[in-house]
Amino acid sequence: MTTTELQKVLDGRFAEVRADVRAQLTQEDMTAEPGLSLAEHRALTLANLRRLAATGRPHRGFAGDVGGVVTAFAMLAWADLSLLVKAGVQWGLFGGAIQALGTERHHAEHLPRIMDGELLGCFAMTETGHGSDVQNLRTTATYDPRTQEFVVHTPDPSARKDYIGNAARDGHLAVVFAQLVTQGRGHGVHALLVPIRDAQGRPMPGVTIGDCGHKAGLNGVDNGRLTFDHVRVPRTALLNRFGDVAPDGTYTSPIASETRRFFTMLGTLVRGRISVAGGAGAAAQKALTLAIRYGDLRRQFADPATGEERPVLDYLVHQRKLLPALATTYALHFAQDELVAELHELHAAAEPDEARQRALETEAAGIKAVGTWHATRTIQTCREACGGAGYLSANLLPQLKADTDVFTTFEGDNTVLLQLVAKTLLNEYGRRMAGLDLAGKARLGAELLAEFALERTGARALLVRGGLRDRAHQRRLLAAREEHQIATVAQRMRAALKPGADQFAIFNAAQDHLLAAARAHVDRIVFDAFARAVDRCAAPATKALLGKVLDLHALSVIEAEAGFFTGHAYLSATRAKAVTQEVNALCAELRPHARELVDAFGIPERWLACPMLAGELDPADDGGAGIPAVHESAPLS
Amino acid sequence: MTTTELQKVLDGRFAEVRADVRAQLTQEDMTAEPGLSLAEHRALTLANLRRLAATGRPHRGFAGDVGGVVTAFAMLAWADLSLLVKAGVQWGLFGGAIQALGTERHHAEHLPRIMDGELLGCFAMTETGHGSDVQNLRTTATYDPRTQEFVVHTPDPSARKDYIGNAARDGHLAVVFAQLVTQGRGHGVHALLVPIRDAQGRPMPGVTIGDCGHKAGLNGVDNGRLTFDHVRVPRTALLNRFGDVAPDGTYTSPIASETRRFFTMLGTLVRGRISVAGGAGAAAQKALTLAIRYGDLRRQFADPATGEERPVLDYLVHQRKLLPALATTYALHFAQDELVAELHELHAAAEPDEARQRALETEAAGIKAVGTWHATRTIQTCREACGGAGYLSANLLPQLKADTDVFTTFEGDNTVLLQLVAKTLLNEYGRRMAGLDLAGKARLGAELLAEFALERTGARALLVRGGLRDRAHQRRLLAAREEHQIATVAQRMRAALKPGADQFAIFNAAQDHLLAAARAHVDRIVFDAFARAVDRCAAPATKALLGKVLDLHALSVIEAEAGFFTGHAYLSATRAKAVTQEVNALCAELRPHARELVDAFGIPERWLACPMLAGELDPADDGGAGIPAVHESAPLS
Repeated sequence: MTTTELQKVLDGRFAEVRADVRAQLTQEDMTAEPGLSLAEHRALTLANLRRLAATGRPHRGFAGDVGGVVTAFAMLAWADLSLLVKAGVQWGLFGGAIQALGTERHHAEHLPRIMDGELLGCFAMTETGHGSDVQNLRTTATYDPRTQEFVVHTPDPSARKDYIGNAARDGHLAVVFAQLVTQGRGHGVHALLVPIRDAQGRPMPGVTIGDCGHKAGLNGVDNGRLTFDHVRVPRTALLNRFGDVAPDGTYTSPIASETRRFFTMLGTLVRGRISVAGGAGAAAQKALTLAIRYGDLRRQFADPATGEERPVLDYLVHQRKLLPALATTYALHFAQDELVAELHELHAAAEPDEARQRALETEAAGIKAVGTWHATRTIQTCREACGGAGYLSANLLPQLKADTDVFTTFEGDNTVLLQLVAKTLLNEYGRRMAGLDLAGKARLGAELLAEFALERTGARALLVRGGLRDRAHQRRLLAAREEHQIATVAQRMRAALKPGADQFAIFNAAQDHLLAAARAHVDRIVFDAFARAVDRCAAPATKALLGKVLDLHALSVIEAEAGFFTGHAYLSATRAKAVTQEVNALCAELRPHARELVDAFGIPERWLACPMLAGELDPADDGGAGIPAVHESAPLS
Repeated sequence: MTTTELQKVLDGRFAEVRADVRAQLTQEDMTAEPGLSLAEHRALTLANLRRLAATGRPHRGFAGDVGGVVTAFAMLAWADLSLLVKAGVQWGLFGGAIQALGTERHHAEHLPRIMDGELLGCFAMTETGHGSDVQNLRTTATYDPRTQEFVVHTPDPSARKDYIGNAARDGHLAVVFAQLVTQGRGHGVHALLVPIRDAQGRPMPGVTIGDCGHKAGLNGVDNGRLTFDHVRVPRTALLNRFGDVAPDGTYTSPIASETRRFFTMLGTLVRGRISVAGGAGAAAQKALTLAIRYGDLRRQFADPATGEERPVLDYLVHQRKLLPALATTYALHFAQDELVAELHELHAAAEPDEARQRALETEAAGIKAVGTWHATRTIQTCREACGGAGYLSANLLPQLKADTDVFTTFEGDNTVLLQLVAKTLLNEYGRRMAGLDLAGKARLGAELLAEFALERTGARALLVRGGLRDRAHQRRLLAAREEHQIATVAQRMRAALKPGADQFAIFNAAQDHLLAAARAHVDRIVFDAFARAVDRCAAPATKALLGKVLDLHALSVIEAEAGFFTGHAYLSATRAKAVTQEVNALCAELRPHARELVDAFGIPERWLACPMLAGELDPADDGGAGIPAVHESAPLS
């Protein structure tokens, strides 16, 4: 059966973990009923967090199975996203920071109770006034040698720790990021352990705790605000793996450069970004499974020939809404799996590899941005494809939509992340150029000139040939777009190097161009990851089917960028139309396989059960078992 | 001051009504606090509905001021969307149907108590199995001459009335749409008044009432389900303006044709569609006002030259997110105003004008689809542009998003509505063709051939000239796209006329093409409405500013369709790039006016007041007065 084969390819390297988690998710009931009060929802999520702890999975993560734990984490999105985020805060960020930045004494004292979910804590980095610009956080930790304590302080309102998970209700200990000052000198951002609540749950002296209140979603997570008024903690509260302060106040660090030290400490954040991308992917998988199953079940409008009503998924526009999104969800899944594997490798490696770590951070930023935007758009489309049924909370899509919405802007705002990607690409391009000798530079100049000539005359369209389902040709187009965008934006950026240039104006004028370059890069690496997955596939029938899914993904990306490809003469007008025809043809070819393609995600049925998929209608039922037909043309009633 | 001038243009014909409603919305507090229980939210919305009734505005609607009441209705979206929808159900649909389809006896008996909000009711049209296909509803109303009663019955589960507002909690009387049967013969869909609850609020005998439960939004509206088991109502319960049954069971109607009668009855629905489009527009205006004010306030990243942090709205990509959406919101506002005026005219006219009525229905369908999709996308973008702050319910965007989401699929699913538009366009095109003599047909054929030759050679790009800010040129491009899409899809549809053709296959293969044609038509009429508004503008400075807003709208539509324009050689590669540069230039030119452009919507400050716009930060405050910085790069915490 192809579904089993497909699932094998999708489950990939961490198939065992996936099997475990599926079994576990099938036993546990972790549903939050719609319409819970904030208090009820928070209490339920905490209870579920403790049940997760009881499974021992978090312990395995701390024991070194990073890839496994990130994979398992993402699968929680199938069950409950508040639980996913609360688990990410407790074990990924709070516990993860203590493990990565602390030393033996911190590990021994806290990790066991953190894994067991007995000690709940916060990752207090973000401040009201500073989100991305972590290096310029304003909270201070000043060492006082007389008492051998650090004084943690919030100097002004913009330095308030904000949007902190576990702060409003459950957290007792916080990893607080602050500017470390000792002997009158600053040493940059460091992390310290600061108790924020006493045993009775009352705020500690000098700690003011606020509540972010009701949110669009994720209301099972108690986000709050922390303000510190000269709060004293012992010298040993400093997470001192990368920097320490002696009793007399002398600062020492194994890493000489302050900036390198900072980035080493922040490196631990990449796991959070990869985890968010994984959660978004799983949420999109669930939304598509619901919408495609419903589209197969729901019939509207009679076929004139037979007089029989057709399933809505038989209609081209319905296929167009769901199948390219499904293909891209496959593509992102494979790209995500490669990220997780690389994260796992780097963590397991005996020697740290800075270059690979930086590369991983760049790819993670790009995949997180593209993946979370894709999830938001896809879940919205699925809601609409299920019409009124999709608007009823009982049918699961509303919660998925509300909970994942913030993924595009937390753990790194997508727009900012794509700019980071673009800057890395520009630096690499600059290095490539610098590496060229004069002859090389001349050659490149000539090539660029030829490029633009081809473009102006439109002659390139005749050169860039190949069948639209030819993998090599698809890649040629995506790579050409990537190179073109990077080369041209680099040209524009050169102006910024001139003395006296208005940096802001030059950067700002090219900002959309920078994002386009980053986007083109991510599209190409996602395509490559999918192509590698197809190559890995052994069973011929499955390989052929998966190949069509890749064709649909690649051609719908190319279609969406038709303006670029025709505008820069990589495609002629006729070929551009052929792309659209090919996308339509692939929708028709994949339609009969739509059900197995979503079933292959292997989402446990208990997390998909909902009235709109119950099929059978009971007129007396008022539990929502009916499928409102409002998505065709319900009046406003 | 330009804001005042701009508001004059925006307020347009119904300026007085707008002024009244603003004054009223400023006194009344109709906010639903986030996190209310379903029961609390429904009770609050009912209380607010009664307060609206007390203002006497609904009464004016029933007294004939249709344009005024539709305008006032849409403005409720600034305050509370559950209230807007509940009001639409009670007065627009329930009361509106009794007024439009009933006669004196029904008016006298019910309308006063309906206007006062004493008698609450339902518009029971949609069935679980039939949404758009209203003509084939399955509920039956069979006349029994012995008792001079109608027997209203739900023959099977798919005939259950579904998603009916006011059904789950408050409704006592329902306008039920059913197949009228008398003397053993069916006469098509008619509406009858059926009591569903007794004075104590218990379901009437034979009536089963279900509850749709919690929804993604609009939880102040009690949507439910109705099933009828041989429920008997008197002969006089029939809303008999367009069809009546005599005591002996003889059926009579002023309209001979059953189909014409059906469409006349349904004509009353167009008001609902126009109202939904208006509500979506007002919601988009509010979201943009919030996001643009925040973008002006929120500073991130220092300008290298000055070291000062810049407001995020200074960044090109932030402008790109918000300003073209703002321009299109202006465009749709003016198109909407023309629809409302035409609706008002037709209602006031002494003689019914079927042609104008059908035309209005087509335009209303198109504007509703394009306008509600625009609102959903724009509110989402605004949420993201406000980052974490936009995710907090206290900052108003989450409720706007959740409540308006269903607008794209109720009151006519957008995809289905655009198909209706496309079919009308095809019929008109067919009539134009039929009107041509042989010579005319030959000329047209020659023109089409020349067209395609120009397109293949790309030579057309040289012919279609004109400055990108030249209004006539912008229109030429939009009109060319509209004509091209309709002409080419008509060509494809001809195949369906061949005997034995597979209607479904031919239609389905061209479905995306049909939608593209409809979309191109709506883009053109929206552009025309905006252009007329600019022409109406007296004050030169305001006219110039408004002209730039129109340029931005037109060019961002053209940019979004760059694939079509370059692919069909209406734009050369170079010109297509110039369009993007022009959009960026317009963003920069309009950025200093962004604040006045949103202030001109005239949304009362009380409906915009929220923590993220409070500016001043108080570290001790925990009411949400702080602006979480998570939209740059908050870790998952």
